[in-house]
Amino acid sequence: MAVSPDSIAQLERAITNLADRLQNLEDITAIRHLHHSYGYYSDKCLYPSVVDLFSDSPLASVHFLNGVWHGKTGITRLFVDWFGVLFTGGTNKPTKGLLLDHLMMQDIITISQNESGQRTAKGRFRCFLQGGSHTSIAKENRPKGVQEQFWEGGLYENEYIFEDGKWKILTLGYNMLWQADYEKGWFGGEAMTGVEKCFPEDPLGPDEIVTEGKEVWPETRMLPFHYSHPVTGATVG
Amino acid sequence: MAVSPDSIAQLERAITNLADRLQNLEDITAIRHLHHSYGYYSDKCLYPSVVDLFSDSPLASVHFLNGVWHGKTGITRLFVDWFGVLFTGGTNKPTKGLLLDHLMMQDIITISQNESGQRTAKGRFRCFLQGGSHTSIAKENRPKGVQEQFWEGGLYENEYIFEDGKWKILTLGYNMLWQADYEKGWFGGEAMTGVEKCFPEDPLGPDEIVTEGKEVWPETRMLPFHYSHPVTGATVG
Amino acid sequence: MAVSPDSIAQLERAITNLADRLQNLEDITAIRHLHHSYGYYSDKCLYPSVVDLFSDSPLASVHFLNGVWHGKTGITRLFVDWFGVLFTGGTNKPTKGLLLDHLMMQDIITISQNESGQRTAKGRFRCFLQGGSHTSIAKENRPKGVQEQFWEGGLYENEYIFEDGKWKILTLGYNMLWQADYEKGWFGGEAMTGVEKCFPEDPLGPDEIVTEGKEVWPETRMLPFHYSHPVTGATVG
Repeated sequence: MAVSPDSIAQLERAITNLADRLQNLEDITAIRHLHHSYGYYSDKCLYPSVVDLFSDSPLASVHFLNGVWHGKTGITRLFVDWFGVLFTGGTNKPTKGLLLDHLMMQDIITISQNESGQRTAKGRFRCFLQGGSHTSIAKENRPKGVQEQFWEGGLYENEYIFEDGKWKILTLGYNMLWQADYEKGWFGGEAMTGVEKCFPEDPLGPDEIVTEGKEVWPETRMLPFHYSHPVTGATVG
Repeated sequence: MAVSPDSIAQLERAITNLADRLQNLEDITAIRHLHHSYGYYSDKCLYPSVVDLFSDSPLASVHFLNGVWHGKTGITRLFVDWFGVLFTGGTNKPTKGLLLDHLMMQDIITISQNESGQRTAKGRFRCFLQGGSHTSIAKENRPKGVQEQFWEGGLYENEYIFEDGKWKILTLGYNMLWQADYEKGWFGGEAMTGVEKCFPEDPLGPDEIVTEGKEVWPETRMLPFHYSHPVTGATVG
Repeated sequence: MAVSPDSIAQLERAITNLADRLQNLEDITAIRHLHHSYGYYSDKCLYPSVVDLFSDSPLASVHFLNGVWHGKTGITRLFVDWFGVLFTGGTNKPTKGLLLDHLMMQDIITISQNESGQRTAKGRFRCFLQGGSHTSIAKENRPKGVQEQFWEGGLYENEYIFEDGKWKILTLGYNMLWQADYEKGWFGGEAMTGVEKCFPEDPLGPDEIVTEGKEVWPETRMLPFHYSHPVTGATVG
């Protein structure tokens, strides 16, 4: 019995289907690694390496507190000019006696593809952070305005884009939800307040200030989910 | 040289093998997302959304403390009637000044398939929890019988079922292993004790009470593993 | 139209490509499970099961503090002879009133294959640990030289090898970076110092002592990354 071209076409379709499904899992794996790297780099104040995780697109942004920093220029202002100077005096290296561990976990990643084949993704993660200084660091050498030692809890809803063969962060949407001084815990927790002025009035300020949906502890807002309920398909919250 | 039907059959078998292996990884990914969602919903007291993660099967259940709540009716009694009223006064929304962060991590998921092709799964996860109230919440408005602020550590051994094209929780097997008042830590930790009466004697009680293997800190029981040792294949513990 | 052998060869190549990519994801999944199991076994002092996670190769090793324990003999000395006796009096089971939770997270795993087809892997993980004793345990029955109750943060850079159809640990590269007494937190944190003598002078000692790159809190060294920057490809740090 001869083999028909139809058999071949059917096999080709099966292979394409598998390749698409496999690509989806590879994309999820790559984005987990990207965000986990963001966490490891942030631990050690490697801010230029953090900035390099972002897309060069003018749509790239970071949401931190009530501000949005736009594009590589804004993102560099936040990480290198603000955090890098505050935490490392501009060296962008780990500083003796400064702990900033970013524990990243609980990923939920969803890949999309638009009509022109451009792949994008959304990801939710949790961060649990231990921060602060060691007693051996003189008070004047500790980061200004940062609690002596604190816990922090927050959630990310991020956006990613596949460009030039690599996944990059398009939007880092960090939502710090609570901070707690180590001595008092969250019973006595007072979280960092937002920024007041935009750039350039504040030379480190964001390009935009968001006035709603940025409340912190003891408020307990729900961060919207980028994905629907896994069983019912309903929008949650 | 002509192509033989055997070549096609061989390719088909290779494709089926790949499809099965790929399905296994997709299932693991889906179950991670399901449990991570359980954690995110629990943070914010979205109890109806939690209940919706479960199968409608009469075999569905939740193990909490020394009790087992059976079926959607029992599961709703636990989450909505007990937790929802205790933590949110029945609103099933995040409550100002109440922290209940469920950090989910360390998944080990194993997929099975029975003879009729029904896919089921087991999953082990760890939970690390920060709970309690903010000082600004008047004492009479804090959840009754809940420590002011506390840490909690526990493990899950869960069962899942693939039904109607979706993974659902069949058994949520939570094992709270320790709790610690924030002030005293686990050195002084006293964990919540179990329930004493079943439903309907206790209108929020479980359908069943388990009397063995539910000890909590300072006891340090080992939760049996659903999977064998990854190298030796031996049963552990 | 007849089907050509070329069509078949092309399909075979596509299938081989998919199989290789799928294998990569299966390997990552297996190594996550291996390390997560290491964490669960360590929680409960199941040290013989921990040792069984390692390769029998003479190249197998554990890096702990400033020491390296070589081969199954050295690894057994560290886990069974040292930890097993210190924490469990040689029973290698969970001990009443002793908490040792190893929270494992934030994996980044990279698979390699050498010319002879031998698969190896490297993996970075974070550990966050809660340790110590309960007040009900008499002082003389608590582990000697271990802080009463403490937090610990550390990173792993591990190596794995695929042998006899299973992934095994080749090198467990643990880097304890900080410890903090519960009362004082990391503001007052003093981390465990290294070992001073090798085996057999110290009957529990390592086979080798490493003198550089092992500083702990309040030092904040960066643990080199086994992988390059996910966007730029540059070596980080």
